[in-house]
Amino acid sequence: MLFAQDPRTGQAVGEPIPESTEDEVAATVVAAAEAGRAWRATPAPDRAAVLESIADVLLAATDELWRAADDETALGEVRLRGEIARSAGQFRLFAEVLGDGGYLDATIDHADPGQTPPRPDVRRMNHPLPGVVGVFAAGNFPFAFSVAGGDVASALAAGCPVVVKAHPGHPVLSGLVASVIRTALPDPALLGLVHGADAGRHLVQHPSVAAVGFTGSIPGGTAIQRLIQERPDPIPFYGELGSVNPVVVLPSALTGDLSALATGFAASLTLGVGQFCTNPGLVFVPSDDTLLKAIADAVSATTGGPMLTPRIRDGYAHGLARLSSQADELATGTPGDAPTSVVPHVYLTDVDAFTTGLPDLAEECFGPAALIVKYREISDLFDVLDRLPGSLTATIHAQEPTEAAEIVPLLTRLAGRVIWNGWPTGVAVCWSMHHGGPWPASTSPAHTSVGAAAITRWLTPVAYQNWPAALLPPELRDDNPGNLPRRVNGTLTPI
Amino acid sequence: MLFAQDPRTGQAVGEPIPESTEDEVAATVVAAAEAGRAWRATPAPDRAAVLESIADVLLAATDELWRAADDETALGEVRLRGEIARSAGQFRLFAEVLGDGGYLDATIDHADPGQTPPRPDVRRMNHPLPGVVGVFAAGNFPFAFSVAGGDVASALAAGCPVVVKAHPGHPVLSGLVASVIRTALPDPALLGLVHGADAGRHLVQHPSVAAVGFTGSIPGGTAIQRLIQERPDPIPFYGELGSVNPVVVLPSALTGDLSALATGFAASLTLGVGQFCTNPGLVFVPSDDTLLKAIADAVSATTGGPMLTPRIRDGYAHGLARLSSQADELATGTPGDAPTSVVPHVYLTDVDAFTTGLPDLAEECFGPAALIVKYREISDLFDVLDRLPGSLTATIHAQEPTEAAEIVPLLTRLAGRVIWNGWPTGVAVCWSMHHGGPWPASTSPAHTSVGAAAITRWLTPVAYQNWPAALLPPELRDDNPGNLPRRVNGTLTPI
Repeated sequence: MLFAQDPRTGQAVGEPIPESTEDEVAATVVAAAEAGRAWRATPAPDRAAVLESIADVLLAATDELWRAADDETALGEVRLRGEIARSAGQFRLFAEVLGDGGYLDATIDHADPGQTPPRPDVRRMNHPLPGVVGVFAAGNFPFAFSVAGGDVASALAAGCPVVVKAHPGHPVLSGLVASVIRTALPDPALLGLVHGADAGRHLVQHPSVAAVGFTGSIPGGTAIQRLIQERPDPIPFYGELGSVNPVVVLPSALTGDLSALATGFAASLTLGVGQFCTNPGLVFVPSDDTLLKAIADAVSATTGGPMLTPRIRDGYAHGLARLSSQADELATGTPGDAPTSVVPHVYLTDVDAFTTGLPDLAEECFGPAALIVKYREISDLFDVLDRLPGSLTATIHAQEPTEAAEIVPLLTRLAGRVIWNGWPTGVAVCWSMHHGGPWPASTSPAHTSVGAAAITRWLTPVAYQNWPAALLPPELRDDNPGNLPRRVNGTLTPI
Repeated sequence: MLFAQDPRTGQAVGEPIPESTEDEVAATVVAAAEAGRAWRATPAPDRAAVLESIADVLLAATDELWRAADDETALGEVRLRGEIARSAGQFRLFAEVLGDGGYLDATIDHADPGQTPPRPDVRRMNHPLPGVVGVFAAGNFPFAFSVAGGDVASALAAGCPVVVKAHPGHPVLSGLVASVIRTALPDPALLGLVHGADAGRHLVQHPSVAAVGFTGSIPGGTAIQRLIQERPDPIPFYGELGSVNPVVVLPSALTGDLSALATGFAASLTLGVGQFCTNPGLVFVPSDDTLLKAIADAVSATTGGPMLTPRIRDGYAHGLARLSSQADELATGTPGDAPTSVVPHVYLTDVDAFTTGLPDLAEECFGPAALIVKYREISDLFDVLDRLPGSLTATIHAQEPTEAAEIVPLLTRLAGRVIWNGWPTGVAVCWSMHHGGPWPASTSPAHTSVGAAAITRWLTPVAYQNWPAALLPPELRDDNPGNLPRRVNGTLTPI
């Protein structure tokens, strides 16, 4: 049985939820696979209409949904209403992606008998992966990275059925969201939901599952990868596992508004009680007492809050113990009202001590904690940045772009998104977003879990050679009935 | 020491070649990584010019290269000259890919302060993976899937340095090809070469290696995947492992030219002594004595030849033993002149016996052997096609396209390339090619190892958020100096 808790009180929420048995997981996957045959064959405009309907029903249920989410996550009305809107927006973005058609990567080479050897007629486009997409929901975004999240939206958009392994932090909400989304689906079995760690294992190993998406911890992701390797047919695994999100404050930033910089940092650090995968956990700053005092003041003015689950709170305590044993405390915030609230902590060290403490000191501490690393000269950073693990983001603060020239190539090797004079929390859902990076930020650095390109994870190309027009998908026929962007004989032919 | 052999005689070729030590592998990788920093920063037009030069030097060395290849592979002048031309063509295709610029997937979303939350300016494009690409050469294409092969060409095109683990079947040629290519490189260290199985292991586990490409056996690929999972940072692995390439002859094909069908099959089966990953190893045919006799006659007229290595020959013998224990012999060819020649074999069974023998009977037998499976009605095939492992190709022979309608969706779930009234051997190098498929055809079904899209394996996106124009890559600046195709605010804006 799974017992949902109110993070503010530790009290049970709702009735206990039974964990799914192996047979239940298999039945859910098989039903999804069956429903998927029709979904896969559904024309893209019709799939897009379903995605729009999902956005509509989610928005229509906002009042009920945010309250249910707050009971289990304590994230509050404003944040949760915003997250529902964001999740609905993700479904709408993928409807737009389907309408555009570029995701198909339709590519045609006509036969060329003059080549040696003669070239046949070859036409390629993306198809949905042949099977069910398994999705492991994250705890920290109960909508945007859970049952209504980007993995589900992009997989349904691709033409794949989905089975979600619910996050134990919000099991009641997970069932509610699934039931809301199903009202907009042509077949409710297209979105399955299972509960419990064992159910997750059975899901990953079911023969009808064609790929797995995951947002969570490094140990969790590594365990899933191991299960996948034990399959007779190891399938693609798209995991987002961890990120320390380095920020580099360059000397010219000291000529700017230090108070704004410090409060910006403190706000990003404590957003959602620090439970963002893009949390700025590592900040390199020039040795400057005014800046350090501004940061200390800003952090002191912050307030903590209850974390999502006891397990996350325990992990945060362990992370603090690790940091405090190797660095000095610079400042702490104050706890919030709830008895379960944790406190923001910021630690201070210098480049030499940080380098000595690698790789431990560059490990993510999930929660409102950061390590500030003082440096003397920009050149002090070259070696240390080269030794950091992969991150989702890397940030520069500077008043002079030229000052950053040598740092930029180091950061673009390190992270999937680089930010100028801003903060990494907040991931825009748009065509250009990349939410990924080298391991452990992502298990698959060519792919993103946010933004339009996230659909490519659930697609696989098929090339048709000398195929009769009557049997070609319409997207590859010479008359291009859907008016899609295509590459023909090497030339991009947009609409 | 590695001893190259002439497959025709089993006699040694050239001097023995020392296997690379762990230190030598590390030195080769580190030198490649160092050289890669400048290569990564080299503008695409300059990289394209280098690729064109590589094509030129390969073609200029054709006389020397085909002879060296023939000594170690016995593949003969015509095939080897053709393969050198194909390999040169691959470098030219990637030069064209760089000139086109679409591979960068440049995507720009301008800031939109009116959105909730306000959208920042975000611009994304692909970058080379931050490190060295390790390539395991294949034995069966000593040019096109080896040191001058598609993995090397696409990785250099992407902007990555490469270290190749030479195939033990042609170690002398491997060194010669590397030395030819290096004459066209700005830094010879951009293409490293190591020898020996231990060297392969050290290559996969070196911290500066960012991804691995592999063409070879299922056990070989599985072993590499295991080594990668042991890394502190598991990196992408792009392996092409095995494929049985099913062919479905539909009843309407019986109204066509059966002799042409049979001789086409026999020619594809025995091309290169059957040592093609696209070899048609499994053929479903209607129960028709005339067709079976035509196939038997065509196979009887074929001639075998020496296989590339004793190990491959042993594997072929094992495969034949497996097939002959579960199916009847339909026909055999004759051996060639060489004392080491093997003989083409074709076996016969029916759908019921084949289904009983799964999954064993659908295993690839690398060499000129195939299993013919008789069926009564098309509907007999539905279940059995659904149970086949992934393949690089699947083929239909029919005179009536409508007859194939129910079979097509099964085949496009099964294989990366589907062929109409043709044969799977021969992979066109073009924009639209897809050479991949579900496991074990590929470890990564979203990606291809042949054709323009092969470059995406070695790329990773970076998104720039609110980035100053002065520090943006030229490809993402508003003035688009290279005149690249880009997507701006959701709309594809071609040149």
